[in-house]
Amino acid sequence: MIVQDWKTSEILMLAYTNKEAWEKTLKTKKAQFYSRSRKKLWMKGETSGNIQEIKEILVDCDNDAVLLKVNQIGNAACHTGYRSCFYRDINGKIVSKKIFDPEEKYGKNN
Amino acid sequence: MIVQDWKTSEILMLAYTNKEAWEKTLKTKKAQFYSRSRKKLWMKGETSGNIQEIKEILVDCDNDAVLLKVNQIGNAACHTGYRSCFYRDINGKIVSKKIFDPEEKYGKNN
Repeated sequence: MIVQDWKTSEILMLAYTNKEAWEKTLKTKKAQFYSRSRKKLWMKGETSGNIQEIKEILVDCDNDAVLLKVNQIGNAACHTGYRSCFYRDINGKIVSKKIFDPEEKYGKNN
Repeated sequence: MIVQDWKTSEILMLAYTNKEAWEKTLKTKKAQFYSRSRKKLWMKGETSGNIQEIKEILVDCDNDAVLLKVNQIGNAACHTGYRSCFYRDINGKIVSKKIFDPEEKYGKNN
C-alpha cells in the first residue's frame, strides 16, 4: 500500500498488506500493515502515536496495489523521524523534514 | 517503484524493478520496470509511446523502495487509458481522467 498525505500529496511510505491488515484498515479507518520480516500485523503509530487516519482509498487497474490517502498524525511517518520515508535522493541528499528525534520517541534501545 | 507526476504529485502507478531495470532507468532517464509475471524487463511507453521521463529519484529509509518523479508523456500512465492506474475508489467509482482509448492505442487484439 502506498501512503500519501491527503492534503499535500506527499508520499509518506510504502508497506505490505495482507487480508487481515486490509480488513482491519477498513474497519478501524487507520492504516494497518503486514510485516513480512516479523510475520505480523502492525498498526502505523502503535508505538509512536503517529497514526494514519484514512481519508480515501484508491485501487489500481489490476487490483494488486492500494493507495491510502491519509491524515498523518504527528506530521511524520518515518521511524527515523523524517516526515516521509522517502527522505533522500540517490546521492544521499536529505530532501524531507526531520520532525522528531527517534531516541526520544522510541527510547535509546530501539 | 512508485511513480508520481513531478508537477501535480498525482500517483501514476506502482511496479517492480530489479537490478537490470534499475540500472537501465538510471542510464536512460526513462522509467523501466521488471514484470514478474512475464519475467522480463519493460520500458513504460514502449508500445503506447507514453514514456516517463525521470525528473527526480528518492529512496526510502530501508533502501527497498524507490519513488520516481516523472514527466508523463501523453498525459496517461495506465494501459486502460486513464491518467493514473489508481483510477477507482473501493466502491468502483472512477476518480481519474480517461485520456485515450486503449483499442485505438494498442489495437483491438490487445
